[in-house]
Amino acid sequence: MKQQQQLFVNVERLEQTIEAFADYGRTDQNGVTRLALSEQDIAVRDYFRDCCEELGMTVTVDDLGCMYGLLAGTENVPPIVIGSHMDTVKKGGRFDGVLGVIAGLELVRTLRDYEIQPRIPIVVMNFTNEEGARFEPSMMASGVLAGRFDKETMLAKTDTDGITFGEALVQSGYAGDEDNRIKEATAYLELHIEQGPVLESQQLDIGLVDCVVGMVCYEIEVNGESNHTGTTPMSMRRDALFAASDLMHQLRQQLEPMDEELVYTMGRMNVYPNIHTVIPNRVVFTLEARHKDEDVVRQVEEIIHALPDVQEGCEVKATRLWNRNTVWFDTRVCQLLQQAVHTLGYSHKTMPSGAGHDAQFVADFLPSAMVFVPSVRGKSHCEEEFTPYEQCAQGVNVLLETVMLLQDASLK
Amino acid sequence: MKQQQQLFVNVERLEQTIEAFADYGRTDQNGVTRLALSEQDIAVRDYFRDCCEELGMTVTVDDLGCMYGLLAGTENVPPIVIGSHMDTVKKGGRFDGVLGVIAGLELVRTLRDYEIQPRIPIVVMNFTNEEGARFEPSMMASGVLAGRFDKETMLAKTDTDGITFGEALVQSGYAGDEDNRIKEATAYLELHIEQGPVLESQQLDIGLVDCVVGMVCYEIEVNGESNHTGTTPMSMRRDALFAASDLMHQLRQQLEPMDEELVYTMGRMNVYPNIHTVIPNRVVFTLEARHKDEDVVRQVEEIIHALPDVQEGCEVKATRLWNRNTVWFDTRVCQLLQQAVHTLGYSHKTMPSGAGHDAQFVADFLPSAMVFVPSVRGKSHCEEEFTPYEQCAQGVNVLLETVMLLQDASLK
Repeated sequence: MKQQQQLFVNVERLEQTIEAFADYGRTDQNGVTRLALSEQDIAVRDYFRDCCEELGMTVTVDDLGCMYGLLAGTENVPPIVIGSHMDTVKKGGRFDGVLGVIAGLELVRTLRDYEIQPRIPIVVMNFTNEEGARFEPSMMASGVLAGRFDKETMLAKTDTDGITFGEALVQSGYAGDEDNRIKEATAYLELHIEQGPVLESQQLDIGLVDCVVGMVCYEIEVNGESNHTGTTPMSMRRDALFAASDLMHQLRQQLEPMDEELVYTMGRMNVYPNIHTVIPNRVVFTLEARHKDEDVVRQVEEIIHALPDVQEGCEVKATRLWNRNTVWFDTRVCQLLQQAVHTLGYSHKTMPSGAGHDAQFVADFLPSAMVFVPSVRGKSHCEEEFTPYEQCAQGVNVLLETVMLLQDASLK
Repeated sequence: MKQQQQLFVNVERLEQTIEAFADYGRTDQNGVTRLALSEQDIAVRDYFRDCCEELGMTVTVDDLGCMYGLLAGTENVPPIVIGSHMDTVKKGGRFDGVLGVIAGLELVRTLRDYEIQPRIPIVVMNFTNEEGARFEPSMMASGVLAGRFDKETMLAKTDTDGITFGEALVQSGYAGDEDNRIKEATAYLELHIEQGPVLESQQLDIGLVDCVVGMVCYEIEVNGESNHTGTTPMSMRRDALFAASDLMHQLRQQLEPMDEELVYTMGRMNVYPNIHTVIPNRVVFTLEARHKDEDVVRQVEEIIHALPDVQEGCEVKATRLWNRNTVWFDTRVCQLLQQAVHTLGYSHKTMPSGAGHDAQFVADFLPSAMVFVPSVRGKSHCEEEFTPYEQCAQGVNVLLETVMLLQDASLK
């Protein structure tokens, strides 16, 4: 099989598919709540299975509930996998995750439109519990597939009702066979919304993702002393919030000039006892920083470690909650994606992913890469999350063109 | 009646009385929980009534539940009132409030020891619900007596169980007669623990309180935009916590050089959504400032009003939650207290009260002043709250000497 003409997916059909999937858990404000292995997730899985089977694909399920819709190729070689996840956060959007699964379906539908049977098999895949919104951690199933997480530990994770992941998996009917896990592939391709404002603000169609950035997250505790706000002179206070505010100022002054691609956030901050007439005796805040260059992340850690032990009479303690190294995607797959985008003439840039994705774990054992399409106003994990359907279709076209290149490329 | 000899209260008896009162609501950690009109408060009221009657005093109750133990004088003139409150906060101490009531009892007991019947009647008084821990606002009954609060509004205030102050009052059996309210007095004297570290740190016995400082409390809201911490470049953020941190820094830089007696606190701060991977879109914090000079308080307000409307792309809004003016105590009563301290030879200083007290409302209609005794480590409203019994006794001696001076003084 050789590519004869430029293939394009069907935008209208793609829009209908996106909206059909969004019906499973659609919220009042046109978002989606579809927590992993919830009633809504089970229903959308059934629907996805039906869609696959209608296209002549064979659906299998592994022991973590990951679903594989296989379109057979003319040769029995490792498949091209197109995947992402269908679970969402609470009051999430209609695009995050599911777009990468729908992309696979639309790609297969387009091949059928053109009456193309691929040489290399194509697998459309749904990873279980990427969001970690019901069972922590996020990227649970891909983490187990990559050997990063221990399966038994994950099965024992509980939701807020005390139901374990293992129980929910069995009850869902999606506890499959370990033999069905994906072990090798020609390539793994994941289309995702950017979840940030860069592509939109630079008016670009496509982000070619070369890595998932490394990060660290620290918790910084500041312990002082509570006293009455009216009766304690300023000179005799050990105000934990004043000390924390100084530390935040110091941290920001050092982080700001470092590198424009460095992002850092103090997202969580709790003040105790948090009463207007009592001097705070304790403040705990997080500092999370992300950059693709691990040296930059290490410099951030050095800045944190250099914080004073005592600030304004308050004890300061910094604890690393977690970190992850930058995951670089497969060079050859990235090059093919680049070639596809050039062929299609889409405006684009190579960029890192600041957010975590299943692909970062899949990259451990399959040649992987990701494609981003713009997020309107950078919004995700919320009901306003939106990407124009034309832009979604451009993303799928990039996957389709890349799949066709892979079919050709592996001939050589 | 003329003072013949220097009178001193009985330290051991005072200690026993303090501990006897603390038995009503004593906690595991030797503090006291005695919320206004609770079972414990009703029991301690009964005990106080018994103590008064045993001393030949007549106890009356007004329509707000304030109790008046009257020791008749040889002349029918306006009484000297010695009072404070017996309610506590949850897990409060054994001294805050009740010491000022016990002081009156111990003073009357000492007069009996010396077989003195005063010329001017003495009233030992207990104000209802000073703390406001069960029914807000604090200083409820003294506020109504002063005409600052509306009685019907106060009666309708509810606790967390939905019980109104009025209902609790009737159920307690301490709903008395409006005619019993105190309307005139020769003087109102209130002994209280300092609730701050100044006296202890300066190794002084007595604080002569010339005023209750004025204060303002503002709530400052900062509204930005939430986004993913990994995918949103620093230059495209509207981080409400970074903006709030800048504002706090600006405020502190301007407030710090103002006046060493100015106290200011950011006691309450809430960050939304308060998730480490989400850029904060909203921060709300309080700024409370106290100083006896109203001009200084006004300058603080000017600094707050001069905050930028927009900080780092976030909208800033400052709202005054409340304020109060400085209350200056009666000059003549303060002079008599000063004279008493000199006579007794106690080390002392004239100081403002940073905390609110019933006396600040009583000062509206009775010639009033307060006396402070040291708080160990400045602690109050907690179980560790402590003042050595000898120092408590010194405080009562100051009241006793002042009462004797008033008996003489009003002869002239």
